[in-house]
Amino acid sequence: MNPDSFRPPNRILMGPGPSNVHPRVLQAMAGPTIGHLDPAFIGLMDEIKSLLRQIFFTKNEVTFPVSGPGSAGMEMAVANMVEPGMKVAVCVNGAFGGRIREMVERHGGTPIVVEAQWGKPIDPDALDRTLSANRDIKLVAFVHAETSTGARSDIEQLSGVAHKYDCLTIADTVTSLGGIPVKVDDWNMDVVYSGTQKCLSCPPGLSPITLNERAVDFIKGRRTKVQSWFLDIGLLVSYWGGAKRTYHHTAPINALYGLHEALLLVQEGGLENAWARHKKNAETFRAGLAKLGLKTLVSEDASLPELVTVVVPDGVDEAAVRNRLLEKYNIEIGAGLGQLAGKIWRIGLMGYTSNEKNIKLCLTALEESMRKD
Amino acid sequence: MNPDSFRPPNRILMGPGPSNVHPRVLQAMAGPTIGHLDPAFIGLMDEIKSLLRQIFFTKNEVTFPVSGPGSAGMEMAVANMVEPGMKVAVCVNGAFGGRIREMVERHGGTPIVVEAQWGKPIDPDALDRTLSANRDIKLVAFVHAETSTGARSDIEQLSGVAHKYDCLTIADTVTSLGGIPVKVDDWNMDVVYSGTQKCLSCPPGLSPITLNERAVDFIKGRRTKVQSWFLDIGLLVSYWGGAKRTYHHTAPINALYGLHEALLLVQEGGLENAWARHKKNAETFRAGLAKLGLKTLVSEDASLPELVTVVVPDGVDEAAVRNRLLEKYNIEIGAGLGQLAGKIWRIGLMGYTSNEKNIKLCLTALEESMRKD
Repeated sequence: MNPDSFRPPNRILMGPGPSNVHPRVLQAMAGPTIGHLDPAFIGLMDEIKSLLRQIFFTKNEVTFPVSGPGSAGMEMAVANMVEPGMKVAVCVNGAFGGRIREMVERHGGTPIVVEAQWGKPIDPDALDRTLSANRDIKLVAFVHAETSTGARSDIEQLSGVAHKYDCLTIADTVTSLGGIPVKVDDWNMDVVYSGTQKCLSCPPGLSPITLNERAVDFIKGRRTKVQSWFLDIGLLVSYWGGAKRTYHHTAPINALYGLHEALLLVQEGGLENAWARHKKNAETFRAGLAKLGLKTLVSEDASLPELVTVVVPDGVDEAAVRNRLLEKYNIEIGAGLGQLAGKIWRIGLMGYTSNEKNIKLCLTALEESMRKD
Repeated sequence: MNPDSFRPPNRILMGPGPSNVHPRVLQAMAGPTIGHLDPAFIGLMDEIKSLLRQIFFTKNEVTFPVSGPGSAGMEMAVANMVEPGMKVAVCVNGAFGGRIREMVERHGGTPIVVEAQWGKPIDPDALDRTLSANRDIKLVAFVHAETSTGARSDIEQLSGVAHKYDCLTIADTVTSLGGIPVKVDDWNMDVVYSGTQKCLSCPPGLSPITLNERAVDFIKGRRTKVQSWFLDIGLLVSYWGGAKRTYHHTAPINALYGLHEALLLVQEGGLENAWARHKKNAETFRAGLAKLGLKTLVSEDASLPELVTVVVPDGVDEAAVRNRLLEKYNIEIGAGLGQLAGKIWRIGLMGYTSNEKNIKLCLTALEESMRKD
């Protein structure tokens, strides 16, 4: 060790992600690095693909982790599914829907926005009206768990509406995968991406993605090249799939060790049990918030168990409370983003973070920290 | 542990990268994850930027690691420096120069190729002739250490030629940084990116990048948005720099722990010492190859100490030799890429891998494995 070596503090990560990482995942990442074309690594890639298919509830051949964080997965989806001149319906009820809209524009598409108030889910009828009025729309994008607000949209319904109009779909499941059901095949989803640092208890840096045959066929039939070489799925499938693995980029080997172990942990515990645990802990937490007289932003039917958004009470200095939580209790909670900055706290109960001890500590710490104001 | 947990073999990584990772770097990555806006993490980011400036020999304010592998850094450079319709001189003497050309096209530019035979350096006079004949070229891209061939181009000279014609420059230093001198300010380089998995003895997954004020001014003056949101430097500097850190994407926290430790190790050992060690070990290795009657692809004056390319002798099954090295000795060496597939081996002596023990073992193993043919 060097005196300047970094010694990270032991935080309780109750923000909107990253969540706390399971010790086995951390240890896995410290394994010796091997080559990205090593037969042992090819075997690991196959296992990761298979474990991702389980967690996505899909048989999709094209299922792999993107070598970048969730927003790289988002941009991979958009870059491959949007051709210049295409009209794309983008459902926006928070910052991440807004980010998709921005990416659609950058990749030459014209976003037609289906809007909902921040904190509300997307209304499937509103999407239906938009698609009915714009028959030239052939792609719809939506966010399952809007990380900026804590609202859950019903993406099974949104997918149904989209397919009624022969549209392909992109779904963001960054904050939902592992916390609430994401059933790619049952829900007839075309392109779905996620992140590792939320309910999978893995560090940030990778973005699992899955595409069904309809989406792969669309990409094969593109008239133009994907604008990004790094994110070109047509090139990536030659490395992640196929009999002969063709070098594309050097995969982040040790991060993938971590993801593999995190996926094994999900498999061991059972995905249904994980959903039930997230649900139960969120109920406990919301009941505790109510006792403190705190209101949540999202109505109960649209609220996410893994991310609770709390309205900052009048007269409370929201930043001071967050700082106190961090300094005194080592608890990180998140601030509001965009139009909700200063108005809410975003409190994550994701993956390894979601347990009773953390919930109790957080409630106590919140109460005490607000009292001091 | 789970019986299915991945147990990576202990390889001696003598391919074109990744190289072996220092145990302190592996251990650093297993530290507890913290948030990407945690004050402790902001401090770490500042230290990483400062250490990267030392290793790049630059005072550039905009210096940070891209959250993706070297080809993400390459595409960040191209995406931000190329506007649709721009003519760009791209020096191509191997696969990675070819990749830059491909990216320039995808980002709307017109590449004007300055070619050299694979295995030869780029001729500065050839660049001069191209720029003299095409006065509308305002950007030149070149690769310092061409990983597909083992050839080193003189990027100080290339930079001089480019600036004579008022061109900005992009330099790929993925396989050079830490192994041979890269002096960004002295050589008047505008945009320079690298990778972590070569001479820095760190796992793959990050791409250090640095831009001088001229390059930043160019980006600020763009008429069009950068095609990629994820790789937009204008957005990224708000997260990596500035007084108030604005969230862009969730940084790969644990990978950055590793990079920080790797950079400290370079600082401890001294960069000049690292260059000298790479040079001395390569001389030993090349002498050993000569004793075995093996020829190298690149002439001595243009050869890279960190990556030696060996011509596969007639009648030798190159894949069989590589497999034997891997299976019997746990040594990974690389195959040829593109037009050199089947014709060369790429043997890396990078970073932590570059030591006398590995060199002796590799020579012995090569001799024995070829004899069996």
